[in-house]
Amino acid sequence: MSLVWLNGALRPADAAGIDVADRGFLLGDGLFETLCWRDGAVVRLDAHLARLAAGAAVLDLPLPPMAVLAAGLADTAVANGLTNGSLRLTVSAGVGARGLARPAQPQPTVLVTAAAPGAPMGPAKLVVAATTRRNEHSPLSGIKCLNYLDHILARNEAAARGADDAVLLNTEGRVACATAATLFAVVDGALVTPPLAAGALPGTRRAAVLAALGGEERGLDPADLRRATEMFLTSSLMVRSISRLDGMPVGDGRCGPVAAAAVAAT
Amino acid sequence: MSLVWLNGALRPADAAGIDVADRGFLLGDGLFETLCWRDGAVVRLDAHLARLAAGAAVLDLPLPPMAVLAAGLADTAVANGLTNGSLRLTVSAGVGARGLARPAQPQPTVLVTAAAPGAPMGPAKLVVAATTRRNEHSPLSGIKCLNYLDHILARNEAAARGADDAVLLNTEGRVACATAATLFAVVDGALVTPPLAAGALPGTRRAAVLAALGGEERGLDPADLRRATEMFLTSSLMVRSISRLDGMPVGDGRCGPVAAAAVAAT
Repeated sequence: MSLVWLNGALRPADAAGIDVADRGFLLGDGLFETLCWRDGAVVRLDAHLARLAAGAAVLDLPLPPMAVLAAGLADTAVANGLTNGSLRLTVSAGVGARGLARPAQPQPTVLVTAAAPGAPMGPAKLVVAATTRRNEHSPLSGIKCLNYLDHILARNEAAARGADDAVLLNTEGRVACATAATLFAVVDGALVTPPLAAGALPGTRRAAVLAALGGEERGLDPADLRRATEMFLTSSLMVRSISRLDGMPVGDGRCGPVAAAAVAAT
Repeated sequence: MSLVWLNGALRPADAAGIDVADRGFLLGDGLFETLCWRDGAVVRLDAHLARLAAGAAVLDLPLPPMAVLAAGLADTAVANGLTNGSLRLTVSAGVGARGLARPAQPQPTVLVTAAAPGAPMGPAKLVVAATTRRNEHSPLSGIKCLNYLDHILARNEAAARGADDAVLLNTEGRVACATAATLFAVVDGALVTPPLAAGALPGTRRAAVLAALGGEERGLDPADLRRATEMFLTSSLMVRSISRLDGMPVGDGRCGPVAAAAVAAT
């Protein structure tokens, strides 16, 4: 994939560049969305753009018109010959002077990139991250922003412990999410996912799964996960079963019936 | 200032560009230092480079040799004709594929920029941020990383409330720091600053002030600040008195004797 859409124009990726004074690069001042491109269209486009707009409201960032963003996404996919795969839309606060204060009229940097579908993944081994905690006291936990270092630390920890991904706890020790996905668990026969107030991101597929299968937004402790009969991850790009948590098997280690229903329904 | 040092070479800022796949831009995966350039040299260079190295160890990021970074800083200042001013050293994890996992051998992006001295600032009006909290449970609170959005939110809140800066509380409601500076307060006659465990960044001038003037690293509540007889901010670039907190005067509103001593000593 070699063409990117930067501030309204398609260009070769290696001919595009982000300004060295861009606040996205210098301070993580911005937002993004990862979108699934399936059979020539973005899946749940409206939900992604609504979440982006909600994030921009929290950050007080201006956005281009939604129709422009939608066209940029489609143009990038088509220009790269993508039938199925993923798109990433990044919006930063744009160029600024030294320091934290934004310019009076920020001019956002808007980037769309495309990627081919990833290889199919089997069930995931997870660990509960010990390195860091997700901050449910920050409004950033409710938006998809560019500050992903806590999640990178947790992912590095997972890799060091021989796992694929990590469960992030919030500052009170309750379950929030995985590093790049929503966590669902079947506990005492009920489908459960952590509430947004626990620091869970309002995932687009999370909402779709809740709408399709029911399920409850309820606080979860690590001990609840240890007795779950089934667990799975959801993101815009995948539903993935969890085979192990901290080395212990989850259910029979294969894709369970609820995860299969989530795949079928969303 | 128009020349920047990018990955070992000086070039015009508008001819330099950050790759659209840089993890600093996409995920905030990186570190920075803001350094004071005074009379042709970096102030407390060793302390800055030691903090950068400590941050790189937390993030598991490789760094160029310290001598290369030191030369890049000096070369950038000299090339821009800077006698006094500031330098910023940014190190990101460099280009990566889609997703959170880093390449097996990350190639960091290293950027140095220079800026002329800012205009002198009078005493600052502060508010205690209500928008967000600093996460003392994350190792990121102890390193100077690129994830600055919580601080930007707090700074935006300060501006909306007619103030210059904000005090960030940690998730337990204790005082951590200001948005881009260490907070010192004289409480019950003693010079106090929040401990690192409360989420305070190990500031280079913070350490210098503690070494020069004594002072205690002690937990502080907002109520402690309200009875402080003097408060001031320190950063690599300044010592700045605080005249008001949440609209109430601090001391006589002017630079107090302890702040003046901190200026003289560091």
